[in-house]
Amino acid sequence: MNAPLTNPEIRRVHGFPVSGDQLVVGGVPLRRLAARVGRTPFYAYDRTLITDRVALLRAHLPAGVHLSYACKANPMPAVVGHLARLVDGMDVASAGELATVLDAGVDPDHISFAGPGKRAEELARAVAAGVTVNIESAGELEVLAREAARLGVTPRVAVRVNPDFELRGSGMRMGGGAKQFGIDAEDVPAVLRRIAALDACFVGFHVFWGSQALRPALIREAQEKSVELVLRLTDHAPAAPELVNVGGGFGIPYHDKDEPLPLAEVGDGMAVLSDRLAAALPEARLGIELGRYLVGEAGVYVCRVVDRKTSRGQVFLVTDGGLHHHLAATGNFGQVLRRNYPVVVGSRMAAADVETQSVVGCLCTPIDLLADRVELPRAEVGDLVVIFQSGAYGASASPHGFLGHGGPAEVLV
Amino acid sequence: MNAPLTNPEIRRVHGFPVSGDQLVVGGVPLRRLAARVGRTPFYAYDRTLITDRVALLRAHLPAGVHLSYACKANPMPAVVGHLARLVDGMDVASAGELATVLDAGVDPDHISFAGPGKRAEELARAVAAGVTVNIESAGELEVLAREAARLGVTPRVAVRVNPDFELRGSGMRMGGGAKQFGIDAEDVPAVLRRIAALDACFVGFHVFWGSQALRPALIREAQEKSVELVLRLTDHAPAAPELVNVGGGFGIPYHDKDEPLPLAEVGDGMAVLSDRLAAALPEARLGIELGRYLVGEAGVYVCRVVDRKTSRGQVFLVTDGGLHHHLAATGNFGQVLRRNYPVVVGSRMAAADVETQSVVGCLCTPIDLLADRVELPRAEVGDLVVIFQSGAYGASASPHGFLGHGGPAEVLV
Repeated sequence: MNAPLTNPEIRRVHGFPVSGDQLVVGGVPLRRLAARVGRTPFYAYDRTLITDRVALLRAHLPAGVHLSYACKANPMPAVVGHLARLVDGMDVASAGELATVLDAGVDPDHISFAGPGKRAEELARAVAAGVTVNIESAGELEVLAREAARLGVTPRVAVRVNPDFELRGSGMRMGGGAKQFGIDAEDVPAVLRRIAALDACFVGFHVFWGSQALRPALIREAQEKSVELVLRLTDHAPAAPELVNVGGGFGIPYHDKDEPLPLAEVGDGMAVLSDRLAAALPEARLGIELGRYLVGEAGVYVCRVVDRKTSRGQVFLVTDGGLHHHLAATGNFGQVLRRNYPVVVGSRMAAADVETQSVVGCLCTPIDLLADRVELPRAEVGDLVVIFQSGAYGASASPHGFLGHGGPAEVLV
Repeated sequence: MNAPLTNPEIRRVHGFPVSGDQLVVGGVPLRRLAARVGRTPFYAYDRTLITDRVALLRAHLPAGVHLSYACKANPMPAVVGHLARLVDGMDVASAGELATVLDAGVDPDHISFAGPGKRAEELARAVAAGVTVNIESAGELEVLAREAARLGVTPRVAVRVNPDFELRGSGMRMGGGAKQFGIDAEDVPAVLRRIAALDACFVGFHVFWGSQALRPALIREAQEKSVELVLRLTDHAPAAPELVNVGGGFGIPYHDKDEPLPLAEVGDGMAVLSDRLAAALPEARLGIELGRYLVGEAGVYVCRVVDRKTSRGQVFLVTDGGLHHHLAATGNFGQVLRRNYPVVVGSRMAAADVETQSVVGCLCTPIDLLADRVELPRAEVGDLVVIFQSGAYGASASPHGFLGHGGPAEVLV
């Protein structure tokens, strides 16, 4: 993927068009975009690619599926505002994200708040806003009830279930076994009885089994098991669920050997599931909640070459970027093995002279490695290096204050 | 170290006193300190422990050693201001850190600026401030000279050398082999000739070979090799060096099996080295640059238990903290294997009933694990969990914006 464009038929690289020697983001050639942003490094998110991704999903998912955006993946207000017009709801992980989503005009009826360790003041804000709180423990339910009573507002409550199954093969397992997330399936009936005893509006269930799955069979199995689990639990519920949220977990290809998720297969499985749920619980809507899958591939990180140096035969492109902006690309955020993200020299897309170069950041630490010995067109000071697959968990999951260089700019184009 | 204090003679835990059931930081019992800060989570740095650490170092190092603080380890302005009165100089890694150090009143003659990828505007700021720039490449030297000429200021220049030796056993190797840091030793003579041809003040050399070393023999070998390397290079220098900075690398014990660095042994080695340097270069001062070693053990991270839950037999203390504040403690910053930092329940230091508990943060990700199945006094909602060894690369190296919970407070007590 890092080879120069020798074949004139190749018009896109990792989803982005190429015009002459430049990558094009949001319809703007990269050098012009950098001038418009006014500084490097920056993250750029292509709004058309986001729109297209949601449309592609809708085309494959059965009608009526409630599609929610997990805004933790990219909480930039402009991105949230763009997605607010495309999806059916949003999931937030904190009162900070809640404020962003409310500002974007999302209907509180379609906002859910999930996450362990919600503080009383966060629960109070959620109740006051009228959003659904996904309860993560019996203790949290009591704090929620207390805050709701204090405010005189009937809270909207869903139960996050820690499933009694565990799946192998997803990038990150978040359900099954002993977990800090959700309520163990076997303890859910007691919590549902407690909800029935409280002045609360029961909305439904949330099962989250994992993330970054690229095998459709895995997603299908997880979703099926989630729905069957919910159907078993529903007997204990104070009311029929409005929403059965079977989580997300749709992965994107980050590395050479990753294949994109075959969406048609996932959609076929969900059609069967949707019918199954409709037959058993006609009032319930099947929901999924996606973050990375909606925005990850629509974003790039762009930094500028500040120095080009050769040390003992190895070429280093020293950039003004680094792990303080894009920790995940350096392999220091949740990864066990460091692997290169796809990278190009976005200002030399037509160049033919390729050599082995490493892209590093400007931080004084050897872990600040953005691309380790990749084949790239020979770049010079001033060139723009682009890291793809950077739309999710890039800007927000990086330590902007580290070493005092400051954070990146962000732009939705 | 996590056992309760059954022996009344044990008055300190990881360097901090205990009073009754509480850990004491900066002379203040923990609950009172939390009330003074006004919110959790927070980092607290004990100014007396920092002062004591510098005094301990001075007692073991030969007289005349130039002790510099690498403020990247903890750039909190109050910490920098405190250390400004104790050390001989400061090293900065960015124009942002430079501003902090200048504000703290450090003499520009004793400030050095190191790091790859310095931008032209950063170099201009350094020249205007009158601080020493540690040159990392031949190209950077030219940009520096251009900016200095533009400003009409003679720049202070040191050469950062990428040594021709490599050492095993330090936590992080930063010299030897092909590196983005410094100028390969074999290329240094040419750069020194170029400095001689420019209107520049040559200050000396900087050799950085690694960090987090706990074996004195390793430090001694690295320092000796660094000085010998500098003595070979000095023949090519435009003037005798004022300062020979042999880096830092003094480690601190993070984990159960780590032993503190035997400072007496390190000091003995440096005494020999200091004599060697004085004999060869009477004008030169031997310098070291320490970050983590000065502040790492003086700091704690304090978070509050928000929920206590048992999932399939495992107890989770869900706190209001997490990896957005203390990435390193979760093993997601440069580490290959996740190991627990030392942790206590700082509000139950006298408790005798111990059980196995995991401490997690409030983020919606399984990597948000602060302590994995440790023996702790049985904690309840409202208790304060303390993570030791958190004074360096804690607050500043964490992604504060992740999931929208906001950053930690910081206090120097």
